[in-house]
Amino acid sequence: MRKNKSLAIIAVALVSVSLLSSCSQTTDVKENTKVTTLRSTGDIGVIIERASGQVQIVEHSNNSLLSELNGLGDLSHASIVFSRDQRYAYVFGRDGGLTKVDLLQDKIAKRVIQSGNSIGGAISQDGKLVAVSNYTPGGVKVFNSETLALVADIQATVVPSKGHTKDGQPYRSKVVGLVDAPGNKFVFSLFDSHETWIADFSKPEMKLTKFTDIGLFPYDALISPDGRYYIAGLFGEDGMALLDLWHPEKGTRRILPNYGKEDKKLPVYKMPHLEGWAMAGDYAFVPAVGRHKVLVVSTKTWQQVAEIPAHSQPVFVMAQPDNRQIWVNFAFPDNNTIQVFNTETFDLVNTLQPGPAVLHMEFTPRGEHVWISVRDNNEVQIYDTNSQALLKTLPVKSPSGIFFTNRAHQIGL
Amino acid sequence: MRKNKSLAIIAVALVSVSLLSSCSQTTDVKENTKVTTLRSTGDIGVIIERASGQVQIVEHSNNSLLSELNGLGDLSHASIVFSRDQRYAYVFGRDGGLTKVDLLQDKIAKRVIQSGNSIGGAISQDGKLVAVSNYTPGGVKVFNSETLALVADIQATVVPSKGHTKDGQPYRSKVVGLVDAPGNKFVFSLFDSHETWIADFSKPEMKLTKFTDIGLFPYDALISPDGRYYIAGLFGEDGMALLDLWHPEKGTRRILPNYGKEDKKLPVYKMPHLEGWAMAGDYAFVPAVGRHKVLVVSTKTWQQVAEIPAHSQPVFVMAQPDNRQIWVNFAFPDNNTIQVFNTETFDLVNTLQPGPAVLHMEFTPRGEHVWISVRDNNEVQIYDTNSQALLKTLPVKSPSGIFFTNRAHQIGL
Repeated sequence: MRKNKSLAIIAVALVSVSLLSSCSQTTDVKENTKVTTLRSTGDIGVIIERASGQVQIVEHSNNSLLSELNGLGDLSHASIVFSRDQRYAYVFGRDGGLTKVDLLQDKIAKRVIQSGNSIGGAISQDGKLVAVSNYTPGGVKVFNSETLALVADIQATVVPSKGHTKDGQPYRSKVVGLVDAPGNKFVFSLFDSHETWIADFSKPEMKLTKFTDIGLFPYDALISPDGRYYIAGLFGEDGMALLDLWHPEKGTRRILPNYGKEDKKLPVYKMPHLEGWAMAGDYAFVPAVGRHKVLVVSTKTWQQVAEIPAHSQPVFVMAQPDNRQIWVNFAFPDNNTIQVFNTETFDLVNTLQPGPAVLHMEFTPRGEHVWISVRDNNEVQIYDTNSQALLKTLPVKSPSGIFFTNRAHQIGL
Repeated sequence: MRKNKSLAIIAVALVSVSLLSSCSQTTDVKENTKVTTLRSTGDIGVIIERASGQVQIVEHSNNSLLSELNGLGDLSHASIVFSRDQRYAYVFGRDGGLTKVDLLQDKIAKRVIQSGNSIGGAISQDGKLVAVSNYTPGGVKVFNSETLALVADIQATVVPSKGHTKDGQPYRSKVVGLVDAPGNKFVFSLFDSHETWIADFSKPEMKLTKFTDIGLFPYDALISPDGRYYIAGLFGEDGMALLDLWHPEKGTRRILPNYGKEDKKLPVYKMPHLEGWAMAGDYAFVPAVGRHKVLVVSTKTWQQVAEIPAHSQPVFVMAQPDNRQIWVNFAFPDNNTIQVFNTETFDLVNTLQPGPAVLHMEFTPRGEHVWISVRDNNEVQIYDTNSQALLKTLPVKSPSGIFFTNRAHQIGL
């Protein structure tokens, strides 16, 4: 019998905190306490210092470092979301740690180890829930953003062919590509079971909607800035899976059937981040997998309409807030370079060489500057986006992700 | 000789502060001093209490009033921009007053009377400059956002046919439709001389670019969310004037040739606010002048593609942050009503009757709630955007504009 794409809607009562509280270690950390008064939070941010388990709190009106905090665990591949009031940063560590950082008092407000291996997180539209996607055990845990008390434990699909985990439990699919969506929803994909799920927290009872057979091995996903389109990349086949959240009844559909195809011709040094897709006007600018190209895709037809030759294999393709230019970084061994392209003509505007291991870029909210982490130089460089002139260099230990608080106000970030 | 549309570029040295300081009254206001510690600024805002010259500082995580400040002068038609760190609100009063409000200390930090009659303001991309557009004397004054010291006094074109002002000076055109644009620019229009000017502050010397003969009597303008398109409404003729800021060399061009035409058939109770145009996806949703309709305009062709029948003459047409719905309020005598329409189907979703004199709407940053000022009930009502259920009512005296701090991070706001 042919397996068809199917859609299941399941209503699940929220798991009570008392039943599950034994699953999480909650500790209030008192070190690093330093009271700072009268700091506004519109122009600050947090930089991950991946090697030392630290973060730097920074501000971008005067381009300075404010404070360094310790004790955040394994921060490789760490990411951050912010509370809706911009007071707190939630740091998702690779070791399953979820750390709530108080940006006004320069201290860790709370920290839980919520799983053995996590990959990312999101905050709900109303700001009351923080969700974390986990590899081990596979699933999503949802926490009260104020207390970090567990609110829901969404276990991923069991994959019998994968046997059991070390502690004797049946193996559950890894969860990837977790984002928030309008209507207090979280959307995420299940790597091993080829699914996308929507967890709707708009009502007292959570509602799960499951899309199966979306394509083989979704490995990451993105959501469009208006929260309408959720797009998962597929590791096991070419193409991507698109879900129109305005029309979930239509299910997922395949787009860009050749996306990923050409990667067989070249070794892929790093799978590009899908969160690095830039949506500007009618186009999405998409890192080609394993090719020295940026693909230009129509967001109307989801067909490729052009390609832009680039220095090497792109990792992040980021649009300036004014959509005028895209900034691209590259995979090892060419990760010392940034290229800037015009979004209208696709012309190369500039090639920069910030230094070894350019890992991440973050634009100031209105886009006048961009901050770039240069890991192996132990520095963050700040550029003028218009002239591409280097304005300032800040000393930061092995910087990776840079996150500014204006993300608090953006869907999907 | 036929007057052609022309483009003039003029470089003007910045006027030194010392020369001009006599033109402004600067006072440091000490009343209302109350120190508030550890307030983050991501979820706060300011509501204009137009009748009493007061403002309310509010927060939208718990939907509460934080503080009321006095002494802001004539606040009819007042508007607000925020500093890039979200600590300060700049309130532009009708009486020419520019008041800098400290949102962390609940006090007026500084206040200047900068003209006799002003109509709006903007803050530069880098946050260092605040500009005010004036009717009397006609022009734009630009201030240091920290000190409110005058940085530039851009005098509008002299209109000989209008004679002289009361103080014997030649009459200069009123200035309207002032917005900020990427590249540290301000863009504005000259009502009496039919021009649009760009003031570029990206270099030490300000550069003025002038577009003449754009159309008769521009009365207001808007800029697209990415800062690319500047569109001025014309009071003296049908149609609008569009300037593509990515291609200023092409000059302005007329769009929507019939816009405004039908208004001769009905009395126009209120010219719609152009800042109330909603841009959602490929469409702009535009209040028809004097008609009971919302027009749907393609942002690709700038042609009208549909029209939506509405309750009365629309004033503001506002898109939710997720672009899923537009919310419309109406001119007197039908200004007790709000209508909500679906942006995809154009269907009417709901008709609400908040009460007498619904003047303004503001969405929370990710769009879960909308705050609505109901002036003649002396209240602000808070609705769930998804269910359109009334969640809470706050007592506010004669509320008009509502402004949340996430505007600090948005181009053109």
